[in-house]
Amino acid sequence: MNHLVNDIEVIKSKATKIHDVDFDNLAFGKVYTDHMLECNFKNGKWEEPKVVPYQPIILDPSAKIFHYGQSVFEGMKAYKDNNDDVWLFRPVDNFKRLNISSKRLAMPELPEAYFMEGLKTLLQVDKDWIPKKEGSSLYVRPFVFASGKGFHASPADEYKFIIACAPSGAYFAGKIKVLIEEKYSRSANGGVGYAKAGGNYAGQFYPTQLAIEKGYNQVIWTDDVNHENIEEAGAMNIFIRINDTLITAPTSDRILDGITRKSIIAIAEDKGIPVEVRTIKVHEVVEAAKNGSLKEMFGAGTAAVVSPISGFGYKDKDFSLPELENNYASYLKKRITDIQTNKAEDPFGWRYKV
Amino acid sequence: MNHLVNDIEVIKSKATKIHDVDFDNLAFGKVYTDHMLECNFKNGKWEEPKVVPYQPIILDPSAKIFHYGQSVFEGMKAYKDNNDDVWLFRPVDNFKRLNISSKRLAMPELPEAYFMEGLKTLLQVDKDWIPKKEGSSLYVRPFVFASGKGFHASPADEYKFIIACAPSGAYFAGKIKVLIEEKYSRSANGGVGYAKAGGNYAGQFYPTQLAIEKGYNQVIWTDDVNHENIEEAGAMNIFIRINDTLITAPTSDRILDGITRKSIIAIAEDKGIPVEVRTIKVHEVVEAAKNGSLKEMFGAGTAAVVSPISGFGYKDKDFSLPELENNYASYLKKRITDIQTNKAEDPFGWRYKV
Ligand SMILES: Cc1ncc(COP(=O)(O)O)c(C=O)c1O
Ligand SMILES: Cc1ncc(COP(=O)(O)O)c(C=O)c1O
Repeated sequence: MNHLVNDIEVIKSKATKIHDVDFDNLAFGKVYTDHMLECNFKNGKWEEPKVVPYQPIILDPSAKIFHYGQSVFEGMKAYKDNNDDVWLFRPVDNFKRLNISSKRLAMPELPEAYFMEGLKTLLQVDKDWIPKKEGSSLYVRPFVFASGKGFHASPADEYKFIIACAPSGAYFAGKIKVLIEEKYSRSANGGVGYAKAGGNYAGQFYPTQLAIEKGYNQVIWTDDVNHENIEEAGAMNIFIRINDTLITAPTSDRILDGITRKSIIAIAEDKGIPVEVRTIKVHEVVEAAKNGSLKEMFGAGTAAVVSPISGFGYKDKDFSLPELENNYASYLKKRITDIQTNKAEDPFGWRYKV
Repeated sequence: MNHLVNDIEVIKSKATKIHDVDFDNLAFGKVYTDHMLECNFKNGKWEEPKVVPYQPIILDPSAKIFHYGQSVFEGMKAYKDNNDDVWLFRPVDNFKRLNISSKRLAMPELPEAYFMEGLKTLLQVDKDWIPKKEGSSLYVRPFVFASGKGFHASPADEYKFIIACAPSGAYFAGKIKVLIEEKYSRSANGGVGYAKAGGNYAGQFYPTQLAIEKGYNQVIWTDDVNHENIEEAGAMNIFIRINDTLITAPTSDRILDGITRKSIIAIAEDKGIPVEVRTIKVHEVVEAAKNGSLKEMFGAGTAAVVSPISGFGYKDKDFSLPELENNYASYLKKRITDIQTNKAEDPFGWRYKV
């Protein structure tokens, strides 16, 4: 039976796959819920979104997604608290960023109501899939891509907006070791680095594979001119603690304006931790590692939350970071996670009830 | 009936769409032939390619092509001469470049035989679709993309290689007006600009749209640091004639190593035209336009062949180029097209009989 929830049409799946899933041993993003949101852009406008059974996407071989990389996405997490209430974290910021990304890739922007109502409806329909276990959550993946046809290198005339969800465990298992990149780069000045564009990620895979072969988990991206500035870490923004000061690079057209990043800055400032948003030179981090003032490094992003770094490689040398009792990373991770999961007050007004 | 051609399995379509096509009025890349080549990468290896009816591609919503932009492509043209023989132009170079692109995006490289035998078989099966009309050809689009599933930002474990074909007319109608880019850029040092990666094209669309709104057809890309050097023109390499010298930028990790470009260089040198492969400064082109030594500019690429430029915009000023009787662009275009279509001798050994 089709019915309307929040004015959104819902077509329920005939059966559920939920009993096949081991909720105690969830990988990241590998199993998908019973439904998805689907919304099509045709004849110059977005049609009404629908919740439909999770199902294959059928595309002509000439669909521009295959040829010209018009695709953007977002990453969010939904949490369920002890009262079975469902929470999102700053979802309107994800909506806004999706449109910023779309605009840069010459893709049509979505109406806020289609995104927000569609998202809420989907989460209500697939509510049973939201894990409660600590460290687990429902990873929510809104994405838009070019479904319109043609080999001419120009924007497509049709698009699909989909939200799919995956109950997920941790993104990284434990602390990570990173490699400061000296050769490759992820984004250009005047390029698309600030957008969550699919192509930005494909470009990172090969250099990341090379780093993994050398024993690292992740590349730390530097500027593409001289590789002198520390910019970002894969799907995370990066924070560096020198003595008691927490430093992160300013956002720019090369760096994603991470929602976790700006929340961490606010939490740290609220706690009285001195925060500097400024260019971070590779050489100052190396110096700080040598003279002992480098106390912590961590990545921050929705998927990996706050991901502490155990050490870094640079110019064939490895530098390790100290194990601090009272470290910022643990404090900030607990604080943001408690807000996200409704275990603590939310003085910032970030939590969003579904 | 299935049968083998060149050891490739062929599954013929039940009906043909060829009678729906107006071969006298072909757009670029808008109608597709009856068949396509399909080849799947699974369990760590490429399975045997097959020619199958042109048909939709069915993908899970979590297929990595939608999320992380793992897609690369090639563009080639097939021509039919007066004896109904079919010709390609330097196809092994396209094969090699496809693998160079794949490697940079952490995608599996193809065996040469799968590409070449698959391509030939497809063209034999769809031979009737190759236009004979001057200026028309069968545009051939090999592409590879990530079909494997997962929201983890890492390379997919499954891929599809497809070749689809579109009988096509001219890419641009007439001479083009270009805008020298001062803000946006298409590629980073250490990035993926030298690869025919889908994401590189999506990133160009928005700045190109802005240029089109200002009355230009195409952006001329400059370096991402100071926008001082002229690098490339959308889906074409760029050539500039100052006095009698033909100049083109050297290829690099930011610039695609165009097959048309290197063929044009060889034809020009063979003709005794002085050619310089070197960095081209924006200011020298502007100076040359002012003092009259700038004689010609043109783009070179498979889709657009040799595409003469009538003028360029820079810093809100327009500069127009002279109309020369004996211009290089016309000579080079006729020379390369005659070789491609078997209307002239091919001293270079570029033509490839299917
Ligand atoms: C390149 C990049 N940087 C940073 C982030 C972190 O952003 P957020 O905290 O909004 O998830 C992400 C992941 O979303 C990312 O893909
Ligand atoms: C970015 C770019 N530059 C240059 C070219 C020209 O290359 P080719 O002559 O091999 O077609 C193309 C098109 O293929 C291209 O996409």
